[in-house]
Amino acid sequence: MEVSLAFTTLLAALGWADVTGGETLDDVGEFGLLARILPTLGQGEHVRVGPGDDAAVLALGSTLLVACTDVLVEGSHFRRDWSSAHDVGRKAVAVNLADVAAMGARPTAVLAGVCVPGDLEVSWLTGLAEGLRDEAAAAGSSLVGGDTVAGEQVCVTVTALGVLDGPVVTRAGARPGDIVAVCGRLGHAAAGLAVLQRGFRSPRALVDAHRCPAPPYAAGPRAAALGATAMIDISDGLLADVGHVAEASSVAVTLVADSVGVDASLEQMGRGLGVDVRSWVFGGGEDHALVACFPAAAELDDQWRVIGRVEAGRGVTVEGWDDVPRDLPRSGGHEHFGR
Amino acid sequence: MEVSLAFTTLLAALGWADVTGGETLDDVGEFGLLARILPTLGQGEHVRVGPGDDAAVLALGSTLLVACTDVLVEGSHFRRDWSSAHDVGRKAVAVNLADVAAMGARPTAVLAGVCVPGDLEVSWLTGLAEGLRDEAAAAGSSLVGGDTVAGEQVCVTVTALGVLDGPVVTRAGARPGDIVAVCGRLGHAAAGLAVLQRGFRSPRALVDAHRCPAPPYAAGPRAAALGATAMIDISDGLLADVGHVAEASSVAVTLVADSVGVDASLEQMGRGLGVDVRSWVFGGGEDHALVACFPAAAELDDQWRVIGRVEAGRGVTVEGWDDVPRDLPRSGGHEHFGR
Repeated sequence: MEVSLAFTTLLAALGWADVTGGETLDDVGEFGLLARILPTLGQGEHVRVGPGDDAAVLALGSTLLVACTDVLVEGSHFRRDWSSAHDVGRKAVAVNLADVAAMGARPTAVLAGVCVPGDLEVSWLTGLAEGLRDEAAAAGSSLVGGDTVAGEQVCVTVTALGVLDGPVVTRAGARPGDIVAVCGRLGHAAAGLAVLQRGFRSPRALVDAHRCPAPPYAAGPRAAALGATAMIDISDGLLADVGHVAEASSVAVTLVADSVGVDASLEQMGRGLGVDVRSWVFGGGEDHALVACFPAAAELDDQWRVIGRVEAGRGVTVEGWDDVPRDLPRSGGHEHFGR
Repeated sequence: MEVSLAFTTLLAALGWADVTGGETLDDVGEFGLLARILPTLGQGEHVRVGPGDDAAVLALGSTLLVACTDVLVEGSHFRRDWSSAHDVGRKAVAVNLADVAAMGARPTAVLAGVCVPGDLEVSWLTGLAEGLRDEAAAAGSSLVGGDTVAGEQVCVTVTALGVLDGPVVTRAGARPGDIVAVCGRLGHAAAGLAVLQRGFRSPRALVDAHRCPAPPYAAGPRAAALGATAMIDISDGLLADVGHVAEASSVAVTLVADSVGVDASLEQMGRGLGVDVRSWVFGGGEDHALVACFPAAAELDDQWRVIGRVEAGRGVTVEGWDDVPRDLPRSGGHEHFGR
């Protein structure tokens, strides 16, 4: 999920008069608090992008540093009987470095804060550390620090750092006339989770997509160089995350259903499980593909598939649907808290 | 506690042949794993200081960035009936920014990953966020990002970033002939914890020292400018942390008991609770004072108190003790895991 959205939960009540005494996080929900937060946070003048995007951007001397943090908690983001420790470590780094890439930045370092029960086997921790290290290395970065404490539940917090060699790409720069393109898988992680939830362990490719996403890290800086006007990584689902771009940019986005397409492997699995596969492709998060807007004249390489267009207006519509998939998340995004 | 020490726990089993199948973290302990880890971690060439010090140092263009992370978990680092949410937020930032200062760096930004039960009151989260924000601001930095997820236990992971305007000061540069000096409180947090553990809520100054440390942030970069050869923040206790410096620098340190001294308020409380107050002053962690080594000719300002000297040899000794305080932690440091 996006750092920015989650961050607003943390800071929700700052200046929010509607929260009454006994209200809990379950009552309030994560996304419902968004609009009330951002103005309440003072930021130093070196902060170029504060909370509210995939990552923060700091101007430190001549360096533009990108930083973000995401928490994975057992039971919510992974299960130890479904994912190996190595998977969890890789995933914890991947979800963060995808946010770094979505700003157009090159990953440089990760740090990990880990809370685990004291009676957890050392071999699990070994696997976690190797996963953290290996995914960091796969993205061209280093695991440079961390902390481990004893607690009741496994909770892995990773902070990722990156450097901008070119322009920063936020969610807010899309303009009418731009094209919308995606790089990476859509719906595979959601399909893999559905498979696991039904008690299966295969097909392996889908299950692995849930266990450990494979964000196209290098495509982020490349998109910036190609002139991307806005970008986000897909952690809440294509519709929800394109919706975040549309909202931040004050534009409308039309996605073309046939252009988005559906992988044959997903189609087959959807039929087998009785799921409208569009709910995975358009509503499933956790694949951490990158979706970006570009000027219509941009010369995209073949990693990017054009799936829609930016227009004047608000909101996201899908061209080519006769009906709305019944399993599509109604909130348009993943809520950690809420009913 | 130090990032570096904790980090080694996380990475302990990487290449450690002694860990057998069913061994748990409780069996292995944190500090016992230290020496086996550091060589197993590959680091990118931009990493100037990797795991093993208070914080990592990255060379990003012409910027030297300092980064570290520390986790606070309910029940171990704080209790919600002893500390307010605001206290917890401030402490979570303070313990991290103290590490930044201990490298000689100026705090610039913090990020927070928070895990909380979904039925926690929003007002507690508000207070936490305000505490995070306020302590970041007090140190001259900004809270720039974060994430909040639902879990069983309150767990707050902060990552702190800083910038080096002058030379980096590690633990490893102390030389025979240097003097040892401290800036900040010693033993107050430990005394405050002892007060709370016995069911009292006052004296307020001591209890507050446990609830929220007050690291002398600005003294870190100033020490670097004054020529500090080695520095560390006191999170495990004076003896333990000076021991880390002595070990990393391959020197011996002699502390002069009379120079370290004991505050009158601590002396009185120690008598009242039947505690040898030296165990708090020399063994108590969490005050996050800075202790540094300087060339003998360094002209220290009056924030620094000279408490000892560096000599050839190994280990830490205290000059002026007839006996060793009975309550002094034997391990020489705080172990999160261990019997």
